[in-house]
Amino acid sequence: MKSEIECLTCVYNQILRISKVATESSSDIEIILKESAKYLGNANLNLTPPELAQPLYKLVYKITKNDDPYKNIKDEHIKIALTLYPKLKEFVEKGSDRLLESTKVAMMGNAIDLGSTFDKIEIDFEKFLTDNFELNDYIEFKKAIERSKKILFIGDNAGETVFDRVLIETLLDLGKEVKYAVKSKAIINDATKEDALKSGIQNVVETGSQMAGTVLYKLSEDFIQILKNTQLIIAKGQANYETLSDEELPIFFLLKIKCAPISRSIGYNIGTNILLKSKKYKLKS
Amino acid sequence: MKSEIECLTCVYNQILRISKVATESSSDIEIILKESAKYLGNANLNLTPPELAQPLYKLVYKITKNDDPYKNIKDEHIKIALTLYPKLKEFVEKGSDRLLESTKVAMMGNAIDLGSTFDKIEIDFEKFLTDNFELNDYIEFKKAIERSKKILFIGDNAGETVFDRVLIETLLDLGKEVKYAVKSKAIINDATKEDALKSGIQNVVETGSQMAGTVLYKLSEDFIQILKNTQLIIAKGQANYETLSDEELPIFFLLKIKCAPISRSIGYNIGTNILLKSKKYKLKS
Repeated sequence: MKSEIECLTCVYNQILRISKVATESSSDIEIILKESAKYLGNANLNLTPPELAQPLYKLVYKITKNDDPYKNIKDEHIKIALTLYPKLKEFVEKGSDRLLESTKVAMMGNAIDLGSTFDKIEIDFEKFLTDNFELNDYIEFKKAIERSKKILFIGDNAGETVFDRVLIETLLDLGKEVKYAVKSKAIINDATKEDALKSGIQNVVETGSQMAGTVLYKLSEDFIQILKNTQLIIAKGQANYETLSDEELPIFFLLKIKCAPISRSIGYNIGTNILLKSKKYKLKS
Repeated sequence: MKSEIECLTCVYNQILRISKVATESSSDIEIILKESAKYLGNANLNLTPPELAQPLYKLVYKITKNDDPYKNIKDEHIKIALTLYPKLKEFVEKGSDRLLESTKVAMMGNAIDLGSTFDKIEIDFEKFLTDNFELNDYIEFKKAIERSKKILFIGDNAGETVFDRVLIETLLDLGKEVKYAVKSKAIINDATKEDALKSGIQNVVETGSQMAGTVLYKLSEDFIQILKNTQLIIAKGQANYETLSDEELPIFFLLKIKCAPISRSIGYNIGTNILLKSKKYKLKS
């Protein structure tokens, strides 16, 4: 999907937030914010939001000489999420439909996101279960899983990885072959291979990209092959929706709706946890 | 006080917010946000925040051909505040120190502010009373009132005006002569003469300005005379603090701290309701 007017202020806020983590120099942050403003003044809103934001993240990394500002926060999020892991597993075991409960756990993890305003790990299960869920596509999702041997799981943020692991383990128990895709280099708090491994996920593949979401022309040839030869793709988070929703790929999106443009695009309120079949979804045999 | 790095993103967010109220045209908002970004890319942070933001508000008014986007919201806020008025008076009458309670009521009103992220009228008295208050300067404030015959009260937002009226009425009961200063033309949701009169305030004077806060070179000659010949000034809200804190005037500021730069400048946490004597305060005889 294209960027919208709200993306301009949202990206600008993101850049201030990450800059403050990356450096203590106010004058460096002033340079970053002024250069970012000049860029936004000529922004191309036909780009997807991750493409729009990318040059500014690179600018932060360059000016602050820090190419992974959220490193410590990512580690902390993974650590906290790992302490929650037994409780997440217990939650799944107690439910009547393990796949459904695992899917909800993966959704729960998407509350972790330093690229939006939702930046806390929500660990309050009671509260989460009274959240808004939109699972109309679940029956088709379940059917697609039954029919697929190979599943590609495209991850999103570090820490969320542990929540994804719970769904992956359910898929493995169902006899599926699951690849977990991560960024090749750190961008915002997106998971890298190191983050996925620390979270206890095996069979990790790198996308070849250092951009939020999954932008086709930024992917490695190897990963494009994986993407095209997979029967079913599970893609986490807004950035993957933003960059993949117009592609002809067999995708189910799992995400928490965190902003107005996504809310308008999908048609559900901000805060909704949604399982969403891609408009262009066709089940591969 | 000068603007700080956070002012850049804050102003940008404000401009999106008011633009959405001013027009339904996404393309107009895109023009406004891109032009605003270009301006912020060359912004002079030596300006006070209201001076920094001013050209962008004017831009919104010009592009949308709407020079008072918050008109309806201001009217609504005044209406709601007027329904609260009897309860505010009761709150004051029940207290042991009427001046103190009236001062708290005026502080309470400063929660209304469409130029910051606090944009709801907080009407929960119980909650308000457990808020953070910083009233160290109250004894000196009380003394200054006792010694002053003429008091200039510089207002802030529409709706807040009704809360200010309660403090003004206490001052009138104490035999003081009180002038209430408002903007000469609408800017953001700042009170104009019409708003003050609707709120039940008499003796309203206009500052000659259409800029948030009180920027000396923007004031009318008449108002400058009032400012200079007043024994005591009570100034409401952040914008008045931002623009008057470096002036040699006998001011007490009454405000809710709503952002990081003000929090750092004053030395109290965001959310604190503070009564603050100006650093350059000298009691006029």
